Amino acid sequence: MDTTDLAARIARGERRALARGITLVESARADHQAQGAEVIAALPRERQALRIGLSGTPGVGKSTFIEAFGMMLITQGLRVAVLAVDPSSTRSGGSILGDKTRMDRLSREPAAFIRPSPSRTHLGGVARRTREAVALCEGADFDVVLIETVGVGQSETVVAQMADVFLLLLAPAGGDELQGVKRGIMEMADMILINKADGDLKAAATRTCADYAGALRLLRKRPQDPEGFPRAMMVSALAEEGLEAAWADMQGLVDWRRAEGFFDATRAAQARYWFEEEVREALLAQLRDADVRDAMDALAAQVAEGALTPVVAARELVQTHLRRKDAV
Amino acid sequence: MDTTDLAARIARGERRALARGITLVESARADHQAQGAEVIAALPRERQALRIGLSGTPGVGKSTFIEAFGMMLITQGLRVAVLAVDPSSTRSGGSILGDKTRMDRLSREPAAFIRPSPSRTHLGGVARRTREAVALCEGADFDVVLIETVGVGQSETVVAQMADVFLLLLAPAGGDELQGVKRGIMEMADMILINKADGDLKAAATRTCADYAGALRLLRKRPQDPEGFPRAMMVSALAEEGLEAAWADMQGLVDWRRAEGFFDATRAAQARYWFEEEVREALLAQLRDADVRDAMDALAAQVAEGALTPVVAARELVQTHLRRKDAV
Repeated sequence: MDTTDLAARIARGERRALARGITLVESARADHQAQGAEVIAALPRERQALRIGLSGTPGVGKSTFIEAFGMMLITQGLRVAVLAVDPSSTRSGGSILGDKTRMDRLSREPAAFIRPSPSRTHLGGVARRTREAVALCEGADFDVVLIETVGVGQSETVVAQMADVFLLLLAPAGGDELQGVKRGIMEMADMILINKADGDLKAAATRTCADYAGALRLLRKRPQDPEGFPRAMMVSALAEEGLEAAWADMQGLVDWRRAEGFFDATRAAQARYWFEEEVREALLAQLRDADVRDAMDALAAQVAEGALTPVVAARELVQTHLRRKDAV
Repeated sequence: MDTTDLAARIARGERRALARGITLVESARADHQAQGAEVIAALPRERQALRIGLSGTPGVGKSTFIEAFGMMLITQGLRVAVLAVDPSSTRSGGSILGDKTRMDRLSREPAAFIRPSPSRTHLGGVARRTREAVALCEGADFDVVLIETVGVGQSETVVAQMADVFLLLLAPAGGDELQGVKRGIMEMADMILINKADGDLKAAATRTCADYAGALRLLRKRPQDPEGFPRAMMVSALAEEGLEAAWADMQGLVDWRRAEGFFDATRAAQARYWFEEEVREALLAQLRDADVRDAMDALAAQVAEGALTPVVAARELVQTHLRRKDAV
């Protein structure tokens, strides 16, 4: 296939070409992946979308939020791509974004592009594919790329490490239900949005928002946060309330980070992070070789029962199985 | 040196022998480390101390707490060892436990053993040394091993992964000062102890305790937590108040975990974790070889400026430098 031609068509904004490109980077076949890399390399490199990470468990109204927020951006003349990171997804039309009818209006907009989550694979693979899909969307000149996750395993970390802004979407809750936020996620958020702040839930949303605003104040300030961030605020995707305010806050945050140098510095650090992750991933992939795995299981059993210390067992494994071929 | 003899003397509770054993495992010399491993292997394996991890930044009164808490345990007839994890420590008598006079009473007790933090090294080394020092203290028949950290870098994770119970010690604070807890640490705690709940600070401690109790309720419940845990409570190391209550709570927590099988399961999982960490550490140590480092820096620069994708760069590095010698 002609990857230069595909790249040119993606750069002109042809949706089918973009979909084709993403299919290449999502493929398990090495030749497809290589072609996908060629396409990315041939895209105009100066294009940059705002990458917004969005995490929220099922039930918080994530699809409704993305639809309403995406439509609001489109009304402002922006082009919006929506991608998903869901390492648990085994269904083609299932847990996340599989059902485009959940975003009925947005999916029919020419200025929107929605890509359901690819099927299950290990998280390293998901991260690579999503990063490459983001690069393809940027090459296709989208202004905003929303990267959505339901937060299985380490997927929030993956999304946070490729996003310029990270949003945590929550539903109003009372009392015991407040235990729902996974450990470590609150700490990644630039903004916590309490959705469903409408009708009967308005009062609960106000309380929940105050609770999280209080919890955010317990966290140590990060250098990349201007005064007042991270912040908690209320939105209603259903009533389309608070969306412009949230977007204005995001833009204020991003403008500040650009002016202070944190925006570019974070992107460069993220690129280096992913390079090092890929190197580690490739090295650690050796541990999945059958002979290594067998040796490791046998040693791990001895470690668990106390017959070997972790150090002695690890040294044995590395020396018998994992030495570099050109090590001195 | 006669490692069997040293092990026998440690097992009889000779403090100088224990100190000598820890010096062996702390040594940078491979032969010393091997001797240390021999000593550990020769110790009675059935002995088990309660391992308590304790984290708290400078200023929260950690030394005073350890002294008062340790003395209370000794009064109850228990033998107490105190170790420190501080990967930042470059001073022999410095940031943490270097100054035994800070624990004047405890350091003079025959039933107590205090070991200052070893000097700076990378965290993997600190973790191994501390785990082996814990093993030596258990072999010397201590009932409680307190593992202290000031929380530099990932050191809390290290301590949490070798502790049966993890405590976070905090000082009372008001308003803006509440931002002091490092991201992710609150989530590791089994108990948060607000120290200095005495005199003028009593009211602030009460508020701080309520704040953290509220924040803990925002976290998802872990299987290894009985009803009411993790919990926040007030103590005063200075006035020696709340220490028995905290100890009773710890014992209740540990008894429950033992009865429910979480205690042994956690220890086995920790042993496997450290084995796998040691394997990963040994594999990733290849990245520190000079030739690999040079190649990696050159590639990383190209990645940061966008000339190469992380995947392509990582593949190139692994294929040119890091293939297993017996890979097929």
